[in-house]
Amino acid sequence: MKKSLGAKTMLYPTPVSVVGTYDKEGKPNIMTAAWVGVCCSKPPCVAVSLRKATYTYGNIAERRAFTVSTPSEKYVKETDYVGIASGRDVDKFSAAKLTPVRSDVVDAPYVEEFPLVLECKLLHTVEIGLHTQFIGEIIDVKADEAVLENGILDMKKVNPILYAPVIQMYYGVGGYLGKAHSLGKEGAH
Amino acid sequence: MKKSLGAKTMLYPTPVSVVGTYDKEGKPNIMTAAWVGVCCSKPPCVAVSLRKATYTYGNIAERRAFTVSTPSEKYVKETDYVGIASGRDVDKFSAAKLTPVRSDVVDAPYVEEFPLVLECKLLHTVEIGLHTQFIGEIIDVKADEAVLENGILDMKKVNPILYAPVIQMYYGVGGYLGKAHSLGKEGAH
Repeated sequence: MKKSLGAKTMLYPTPVSVVGTYDKEGKPNIMTAAWVGVCCSKPPCVAVSLRKATYTYGNIAERRAFTVSTPSEKYVKETDYVGIASGRDVDKFSAAKLTPVRSDVVDAPYVEEFPLVLECKLLHTVEIGLHTQFIGEIIDVKADEAVLENGILDMKKVNPILYAPVIQMYYGVGGYLGKAHSLGKEGAH
Repeated sequence: MKKSLGAKTMLYPTPVSVVGTYDKEGKPNIMTAAWVGVCCSKPPCVAVSLRKATYTYGNIAERRAFTVSTPSEKYVKETDYVGIASGRDVDKFSAAKLTPVRSDVVDAPYVEEFPLVLECKLLHTVEIGLHTQFIGEIIDVKADEAVLENGILDMKKVNPILYAPVIQMYYGVGGYLGKAHSLGKEGAH
């Protein structure tokens, strides 16, 4: 018997991403976002949902491009900080001692210190309610050599951060459970 | 210096969800989905992206409702199985020895054995490419008493599964890193 908790955004967990954009004047900005998810394989797309009140919202609407960087666990404090402060008031890259790098494929910056980045061009804008969903086509993915093992991304080296909505807690990634589309051969009883 | 990996859906990690629907005849079906993410806080919404070829796609188009159940780690084999088999060919609930429960708020079933479920009404359908995104308004959330601690969801008790796209591996959730919107007070240097 399950207990009703009410209508809440309780998808557990969500990945923690940092969205990079330029403003009108070309100042690089970053903000932490938890309402992020892949939404298509062909073309490869990622959806980022933001409130209109955010500085990033205006930047994406203006520049029609953004990046999604994946921070590693060791940057959890900086990551949380860029989710609290606003690019209207402060240069968050500078305050968090992070380095903006201009993408060579889209009009947006990414975070040098974070190991993985999706570089996106705005494809669709979907008005939902408090949040607007920006669907970006992933034009390229870049990763640090240090998180690659024979050219393949190593999840434990990326060491991403997870977010638990509503209870507002961060977690790390745990142990390897097995290969997808393979384990399931033993899943029918 | 980052290395280009090409245009891929490399958001790390994505939550693993099981989408529950009824078909035209009222037969309950489930499928595993990794392209799932929260996309709005008010109204609370979750987006699920599916290929037209899936049985679930037709079910959602017909019934305009679905559930998103979060499986625990111990059900990783069953979860992978319901992502491999098709509801056109087999009763996946029965094959995986899982129990369908009719939602009391939407026209869709959820999985009794999984600790957490979002019950959704279809709000928007967004055609993107290979995948179509179904945006569902979360009407209620239900959780097993066993994963609640004083009415608050305990992430480690839910023990969700994570998916690493492209490399196609499953992982568990790791250790607690800290409180969101709090850790960041030490994130500016």
